[in-house]
Amino acid sequence: MERTIKFKTAAIEKAIHLDFFNIAVSVDCVIFGYEEKQLKVLLIQSDLKEFEGLSSLLGDMVRPSESIEDAPYRVLEDRTGFRDIFLQQVQTFGSVNRHPSGRVITTAYFSLVNINNHTVQLAKNELHWQAVNEIKKLAFDHKLILDTCVAKLQDQIMEQPIVFNLLPEKFSLRELQDLYEAILGIELDRRNFRKRIMLKNWLQDLSEMEIDVPHRPGKLYKFKRAIKKMHKD
Amino acid sequence: MERTIKFKTAAIEKAIHLDFFNIAVSVDCVIFGYEEKQLKVLLIQSDLKEFEGLSSLLGDMVRPSESIEDAPYRVLEDRTGFRDIFLQQVQTFGSVNRHPSGRVITTAYFSLVNINNHTVQLAKNELHWQAVNEIKKLAFDHKLILDTCVAKLQDQIMEQPIVFNLLPEKFSLRELQDLYEAILGIELDRRNFRKRIMLKNWLQDLSEMEIDVPHRPGKLYKFKRAIKKMHKD
Repeated sequence: MERTIKFKTAAIEKAIHLDFFNIAVSVDCVIFGYEEKQLKVLLIQSDLKEFEGLSSLLGDMVRPSESIEDAPYRVLEDRTGFRDIFLQQVQTFGSVNRHPSGRVITTAYFSLVNINNHTVQLAKNELHWQAVNEIKKLAFDHKLILDTCVAKLQDQIMEQPIVFNLLPEKFSLRELQDLYEAILGIELDRRNFRKRIMLKNWLQDLSEMEIDVPHRPGKLYKFKRAIKKMHKD
Repeated sequence: MERTIKFKTAAIEKAIHLDFFNIAVSVDCVIFGYEEKQLKVLLIQSDLKEFEGLSSLLGDMVRPSESIEDAPYRVLEDRTGFRDIFLQQVQTFGSVNRHPSGRVITTAYFSLVNINNHTVQLAKNELHWQAVNEIKKLAFDHKLILDTCVAKLQDQIMEQPIVFNLLPEKFSLRELQDLYEAILGIELDRRNFRKRIMLKNWLQDLSEMEIDVPHRPGKLYKFKRAIKKMHKD
């Protein structure tokens, strides 16, 4: 079969599609933490008049000279000072009218951080940790983005040992189960949970017991070093 | 703590960031198939002069009035005629100079299709199935995108029963193992593979045997209906 492709140059391609080069791209960071047996997310007050009184995720437009891959790290550091965090790209959201300033598509990233080790400057636009299950409405389509990231997190925690950042170094199986229940939003059967977790081979038994707890002391565990390393970057 | 947020309107936000609204967005579809014990991907000849002689994934720019979520379905139908395919969003690629026409970020989607059930119009820009492990170079950053999607596929197949589209309705464990080996690019131990797959509880034993095969006939299986349904949309 003989056929000739009709080639065009990149410049002509652009000239044909000039009205396509009209989009801005943003990134939004969904930073999860865990405190008082609740899954929390870091929010900020929106400074757009159109969303007065609403909170939003931590986001910003990608700069003309900045890659999408770099942008969420810059945004997170600008907003919180956090520097040592791995951000996982989750999904890009691109419905036509999702932003009142024009066409802005956004790529969402998530991370899990230890709230105690990450002090945020709460003064700045009222940055705050909020319990995920108390959030009814956010600016833009950020509630949809948050829900998508929560679903992703729920999917991942039974397959991958990603939650170690949410717990102290040493923890009991009871504490681990509390965390899983907070993320999944359901109660788990104690015996089944322990059996499933132990089968994963993620945990190292420290041969220590809890102390000063108001219940029978449980054994303490930590995540194996190799596991943490593998899932950190 | 009393603080007042300095609000700006969406119009002002746009005015401040006018040079940010300069980006085009594309989608690229990574369509995997399986044939002759090889994982294949659907490619097309690039019609950009800058990439003369190179193939690319099936992609196009997102139209001004089109959502990113709709675009890959339109592109796939335009290029191949395929209409009944579920596309999973994988990742967005946004390095600054990835496209010679200007700043274009792209969101990659993948799907697995049965090559025998999906006849493509091969005449159109030499659309063709190519074995993944034979591909050395593609237009744009499409080799990186392909590699990312292959890695994603490799991650998913041991956790989720997503490969049913790549096999005939009825198949033997030997055929299933061939497919897994083609995707993973490694040989698997026969007994371990069977044990792992059976533990997943994805397969239904059809109480039938292979016929007309040049080896000892194996039992035939199919994926359970509930499994297929769950992973189709």
